[in-house]
Amino acid sequence: MAKKNSASNDKKQNPRQDNAGTSKQKSKSFQYKKNSKSFKSRNGSAKKYRKPVDETPLRIAFLGGLNEVGKNMTLYEYKDEMFIVDCGLAFPDPEMLGVDLVIPDFTYVEKNADKIKGIFITHGHEDHIGGLAYLLKTVNIPVYGTKLTIGLIQGKLKEHGILSSAKLNEVAPGDVVTLDEFSVEMIHVNHSIPDAIALAIKCGAGTVIQTGDFKVDSTPIDGGMIDLSRFAQLGDEGVLALLSDSTNAERPGYTESERKVGESFDVLFRKAGKSRIIVATFASNIHRVQQIINVAASLGRKVAIMGRSLENVVNISAQLGYLNIPDNVLINADLINKYPSDSLVIITTGSQGEPMSALSRMAFSDHRKVEICPNDYVIISATPIPGNEKTVGKVVNELLKLGAEVIYEKMYDVHVSGHACQEELKLIMGLVKPKYFIPVHGEQKHLRKHAMLAQGMGIPVENIFMADNGYVAELSSKAIKSVASVPAGKVFVDGSGVGDVGSVVLRDRKHLGQDGIIVVTASLDYETGQLIAGPEVVSRGFVYVKENEALIEQARKVAEKSLENCYYSNISDMNAIKGKLRDSVSHFVYEQTKRSPMILPIIMEV
Amino acid sequence: MAKKNSASNDKKQNPRQDNAGTSKQKSKSFQYKKNSKSFKSRNGSAKKYRKPVDETPLRIAFLGGLNEVGKNMTLYEYKDEMFIVDCGLAFPDPEMLGVDLVIPDFTYVEKNADKIKGIFITHGHEDHIGGLAYLLKTVNIPVYGTKLTIGLIQGKLKEHGILSSAKLNEVAPGDVVTLDEFSVEMIHVNHSIPDAIALAIKCGAGTVIQTGDFKVDSTPIDGGMIDLSRFAQLGDEGVLALLSDSTNAERPGYTESERKVGESFDVLFRKAGKSRIIVATFASNIHRVQQIINVAASLGRKVAIMGRSLENVVNISAQLGYLNIPDNVLINADLINKYPSDSLVIITTGSQGEPMSALSRMAFSDHRKVEICPNDYVIISATPIPGNEKTVGKVVNELLKLGAEVIYEKMYDVHVSGHACQEELKLIMGLVKPKYFIPVHGEQKHLRKHAMLAQGMGIPVENIFMADNGYVAELSSKAIKSVASVPAGKVFVDGSGVGDVGSVVLRDRKHLGQDGIIVVTASLDYETGQLIAGPEVVSRGFVYVKENEALIEQARKVAEKSLENCYYSNISDMNAIKGKLRDSVSHFVYEQTKRSPMILPIIMEV
Repeated sequence: MAKKNSASNDKKQNPRQDNAGTSKQKSKSFQYKKNSKSFKSRNGSAKKYRKPVDETPLRIAFLGGLNEVGKNMTLYEYKDEMFIVDCGLAFPDPEMLGVDLVIPDFTYVEKNADKIKGIFITHGHEDHIGGLAYLLKTVNIPVYGTKLTIGLIQGKLKEHGILSSAKLNEVAPGDVVTLDEFSVEMIHVNHSIPDAIALAIKCGAGTVIQTGDFKVDSTPIDGGMIDLSRFAQLGDEGVLALLSDSTNAERPGYTESERKVGESFDVLFRKAGKSRIIVATFASNIHRVQQIINVAASLGRKVAIMGRSLENVVNISAQLGYLNIPDNVLINADLINKYPSDSLVIITTGSQGEPMSALSRMAFSDHRKVEICPNDYVIISATPIPGNEKTVGKVVNELLKLGAEVIYEKMYDVHVSGHACQEELKLIMGLVKPKYFIPVHGEQKHLRKHAMLAQGMGIPVENIFMADNGYVAELSSKAIKSVASVPAGKVFVDGSGVGDVGSVVLRDRKHLGQDGIIVVTASLDYETGQLIAGPEVVSRGFVYVKENEALIEQARKVAEKSLENCYYSNISDMNAIKGKLRDSVSHFVYEQTKRSPMILPIIMEV
Repeated sequence: MAKKNSASNDKKQNPRQDNAGTSKQKSKSFQYKKNSKSFKSRNGSAKKYRKPVDETPLRIAFLGGLNEVGKNMTLYEYKDEMFIVDCGLAFPDPEMLGVDLVIPDFTYVEKNADKIKGIFITHGHEDHIGGLAYLLKTVNIPVYGTKLTIGLIQGKLKEHGILSSAKLNEVAPGDVVTLDEFSVEMIHVNHSIPDAIALAIKCGAGTVIQTGDFKVDSTPIDGGMIDLSRFAQLGDEGVLALLSDSTNAERPGYTESERKVGESFDVLFRKAGKSRIIVATFASNIHRVQQIINVAASLGRKVAIMGRSLENVVNISAQLGYLNIPDNVLINADLINKYPSDSLVIITTGSQGEPMSALSRMAFSDHRKVEICPNDYVIISATPIPGNEKTVGKVVNELLKLGAEVIYEKMYDVHVSGHACQEELKLIMGLVKPKYFIPVHGEQKHLRKHAMLAQGMGIPVENIFMADNGYVAELSSKAIKSVASVPAGKVFVDGSGVGDVGSVVLRDRKHLGQDGIIVVTASLDYETGQLIAGPEVVSRGFVYVKENEALIEQARKVAEKSLENCYYSNISDMNAIKGKLRDSVSHFVYEQTKRSPMILPIIMEV
């Protein structure tokens, strides 16, 4: 069962690149082994870190995901070979006004384009794949991912119009991809999306395990329990370093099994009685969707899917065999009014209160197909991500005002996390027994807690590496140390622009958004500098203009006076005149209103 | 001990109005009885709701605090007399760009100015007193509050320059203020600020109890346990309606005693060893501050206060006797570096991660006096208010990066709520046994849960009134019903402007903040309409101008073309020309960038 894929420099060796993205043909050796729990025979190149083949150190460059949530990206470098793990996006903070999404800085990747052999994707969540399309536009390297992950990536690349040129390679747990210096083995893990993998990365310096996002679910909905025995085998062989998911490092205990949520659905769907049931969940949580469908079917209810991203993921998952929908259960969302409320379940997006989502629009009576009424039983099957508490609360309040019953937050077990809690994190450390430990995926507080857990497990503090974006760690049998720094800032995507919005633009947006703008225009005689038209004062976002005509007129007079003063003082430098104009209007406005709108003087010479 | 204060229409009867605000002289009958738990004799005008004197119904107008958190304000109306309870502010939602604070709409108050006999304040928190200065500028009615509440109000009125004209009246638990139709009795309750009261409001229609914010703390730091027996007596006499605090109605069980936090401080301060201790808490939580001081003193540490609002509240509380500071414990914040770290506790503001607060500035290495180092032990003695999770998280992350140890959120019992949980809410209902129940102070989800608790206690659903801002409820022995609606929207305060920012301005601010602005200016010949200067294109908050000169120049050409087209098509109407200009530039920019900045055309006729 040993599987190898030689992805050396000669790119033609990848059989599926010719017709990548849409091709159904696959080399048999890459077929996903569903429910298979035996990964006995593997590439045997593992070396104990105590006896590396040579003393060339391994380098790991952290390009994203440290001290932040999202845009995970790691680059491995050994001798003259490099590869990347994941390329995610981050959602903008509220102060990144107008920014659509944030992606990693690809400067270091571009610089080393010829050395990079490919990118391995651990699973199909946005924080691991959302930057990929932008990356491939920069360097079109081969992509390795499991079946569902590749399916989701195809959708994204299609939107960006680069699907046909992409080099997509489907791999399965147990597969090993062999590069020149590295080999990368896929290990099955549990997470809140199917087909998630950890990676065992081997090179002359030793073995590194990067967990990706994971949890330990002994009763998952599909795909079997995380392959703990493979982690154990690798641990016994000797592991140089473990890079592990820190998302839930602050939470004690174990994360509950996804199956727990199914049990809650069964109880709640029965409690709903004759009401229509609406369940909001993350689009990518296929196992959650599967459980909703199962419980609905068992109670004789039909299921309708609402929300573009959910419809999209459900389609791909069903096509690829990750979602098992019994016949005659799924109905067209346009036909929901043909079914009585007690035989209907609507699955929808919007569990985080996203303003444009289906659930939000239902709550604010703005949805084309669903009108919320007292006969609705709404279950929000998610916990608010920090920062979303208020938007989720608003949706709940509006649904309640419309008379619906709403099950939210911790009222019942309608959500479990996809990430390992402290006991699971310790379990993996215990199995892997790494020489070096690097907490990844998380803010400082998560990384710190995870590091403390590692210390508690007996890993010496000098063997725990606290990374940050831009750090390059060098790992040898002797030590782990920071050796360089590489560009790894935030690149903002706004509309079709990538990187053309930065701190200056954001500072202006903040100023404009907080206080509005006053534009002062005037025409001066080109030769004499005398005022020949204006000044005009136009404001936006400052005050109700109609009710404050006097204020605006006074500001106009202040501007006029300022221009006259310049004229009589023989000030003819345009920047000087604009500066005087700005100062005088700004001062007047602040005196009158205690506000500081942006003052933009525009002077035309006629 | 019966206390009466006649506050009839003749305003001269209030003895302390002559020199209000700063006067130390008080009528003896109003002295605050510290620790007194006996309120035996009271104004005996209570009538059982079953036998009202006459059938004139009582009206309650809800002017704020329903379906929102903050700006609590209620108006009572019986025959020709009115009074108000509380006048708070709300903090702006993130979408209220540039708004400093939100206050209630005073239209209904202004309209009835001659009927309103006064305002009773339940306690000194911003959501109960923050709108008062604006109200008093509108109608200068007498204000009634307990000693600390009045002390805090004085500070606010001084800032607004209206302290000398204000009619402030100090009352104490057990006092009864008698108006013409109403009497209002103050009842001691526990809360996260000292000197909080509930009100027992009596009139011909019966007795109404308004709890204000409260919890049941059997071991409070000061002021004694909530006067449950008075609630019980009133309940036995017969209560027409109960208006009760819904803030924690979603939380089962009991809120822990404030004393619990003191025990945690004792444990943590000892764990801190030789580190400097920094505790962040709400400025108004005097009992919390008292406990920090007590534990610090017991361990021989000095205490320094940082943060303007905290210094302010500590000064007022110490002056009025609400804070007991042992000699030689408090030190000047400027002198902290003269003390070794293990003999120092710094109490600071910023427990909600507020960007300008002392703790935030410390975390971002921007504080004049405190530089965070690995020898710091920081305790955040608060739970993030929904919406603040991310800002608090950021502060924690930055403190950790500087090497400090940080105790936050639920790691230890370093915070308890000031509001009653479900068991306490039921206890009050059980004691008061109201005919009608009105949940107040909270969002829909809180009000709903509170109403469900009341139903569970046996209050018939038709006797539970779900109010909203602007509702007027009419209460008689027969029924409670909604009879009218009054203006009760949000009034925005921005700088010195009150109400001059509304939905149009906010919409513009949002647009400006998200996408920036492009101003297109041109001068046309007044007679011919021919272009004689410009067009010029200036942008702010749109793109990096220096790196996008070509794009701006192209936009200028598009504008020029548009103006030429108008000229040759004989379009001379200014609005039409501006419209064409806006459309063409907007279209061009969207095509190029997929963004929609605000386009502002300004045309001058020369």
